[in-house]
Amino acid sequence: MRKVLIIGVGAGDPDYVTVQAVKALNTVDAFFLIDKGSAKDDLVQLRRDICEQHITGHPYRFVQATDPERDRTADAYGDAVKDWHHRRAEIFERMIADELTDDGVGAILVWGDPSLYDGTIRIVEELLDRGNVAFDYDVIPGVSSLHSLTARHRIPLNRIGEPIHITPGRLLADGMPAGQDNVVVMLDGDCAFRHVKDNDVDIYWGAYLGTKDEILFSGPVVEVGPQIEKARAQARERKGWVMDTYLLRRRRA
Amino acid sequence: MRKVLIIGVGAGDPDYVTVQAVKALNTVDAFFLIDKGSAKDDLVQLRRDICEQHITGHPYRFVQATDPERDRTADAYGDAVKDWHHRRAEIFERMIADELTDDGVGAILVWGDPSLYDGTIRIVEELLDRGNVAFDYDVIPGVSSLHSLTARHRIPLNRIGEPIHITPGRLLADGMPAGQDNVVVMLDGDCAFRHVKDNDVDIYWGAYLGTKDEILFSGPVVEVGPQIEKARAQARERKGWVMDTYLLRRRRA
Repeated sequence: MRKVLIIGVGAGDPDYVTVQAVKALNTVDAFFLIDKGSAKDDLVQLRRDICEQHITGHPYRFVQATDPERDRTADAYGDAVKDWHHRRAEIFERMIADELTDDGVGAILVWGDPSLYDGTIRIVEELLDRGNVAFDYDVIPGVSSLHSLTARHRIPLNRIGEPIHITPGRLLADGMPAGQDNVVVMLDGDCAFRHVKDNDVDIYWGAYLGTKDEILFSGPVVEVGPQIEKARAQARERKGWVMDTYLLRRRRA
Repeated sequence: MRKVLIIGVGAGDPDYVTVQAVKALNTVDAFFLIDKGSAKDDLVQLRRDICEQHITGHPYRFVQATDPERDRTADAYGDAVKDWHHRRAEIFERMIADELTDDGVGAILVWGDPSLYDGTIRIVEELLDRGNVAFDYDVIPGVSSLHSLTARHRIPLNRIGEPIHITPGRLLADGMPAGQDNVVVMLDGDCAFRHVKDNDVDIYWGAYLGTKDEILFSGPVVEVGPQIEKARAQARERKGWVMDTYLLRRRRA
């Protein structure tokens, strides 16, 4: 039976990779990569670096394809994402069918952890449902950007007895989600913290976490928010891409 | 300057430890352990196993103390936890002062990730505030039980575009938190999912994740909940302790 591994390689520092992931990397024949275009070539290179550093003796190759275009103008966000996943699924299906022998092992490397705002598990399940190619699969967890963010700021994610809310940036359009005092924001392409005008909310923000390019900011969101916007725009201009995450926390009275 | 490392060692499988953590372990002179009493001796042994497996050549020792009693009957949960943290802080303060040379490195190993429902960062900050002993400290993130749970069930934590809510079990006393459809429950000593009576909510539950004792259940919470309660009680009886986590997810119409 063919096998596909979905491997979380951690969010940022290449040393976030786990011993379990290293063992798994050393069983892989083909790594399936979907290239996001030149702006994010760094990220493809980082994956190659991880393999080069940790694979000892097992022959492997990279199989690369170009990411399908995604309709970012669509009104129905969920439908646009599903359509994009669907087209990615077709690409992976061809890769598995064409590039793996009957007992071959393929892998998809995912930034951070594969369960957190990443579509790979969903895509692989779709492939199994379609039934055009048979394979077994496994998920290997990783250090997510949640935890690299808090580690680099040296803060707990929660306060004693309080819940935590994790949300995509687009749900911040009206400010802090109702009733939530600890909000982690992911997938935010547009500095949604701008919509938070509360004087009693602090932000803990980080980009390129755990790497030499790391940028950290913390403080009242109404004060440091504009500094973050500026630093983020400059970094994005310089590197061509940015990955950032942040925690918004309401101070206690 | 003395240094203290708070190292996340992952939730369950000893192979969840990261390469960064392995490098850090190899710089440590003294590991500070607070023993929870005989029932959880397994957990002390697991920490020793991780050190034995991953430390090569650097001499190290374990410094062990007994966990202070915690008032679990107190009405004010937050105050009881703070008092317990305070007494743990005193123990760590003595350990750092007595067991580390001026440039010595001490470490506290934390299950999962140090930012998620763990008090170690808070305790270390308290020590610095008190100022009786000077040291620098660093946090090394780990694979949290959130991610080992979803990896072992092979599910995404979020659905497309939806937020995730993480909460201590005690906030589930009135059922699903209002307005939340994806709820991760941690620190639940008493099967709080019993309070969820909704027919459209599924549970994904796991205990001893990533270990040989792992138990997984999933399905409608009203159906599998009673099976989980039984399996959990039996496992706890057999091993003397249990660590479990779960996701409650409302099915879409």
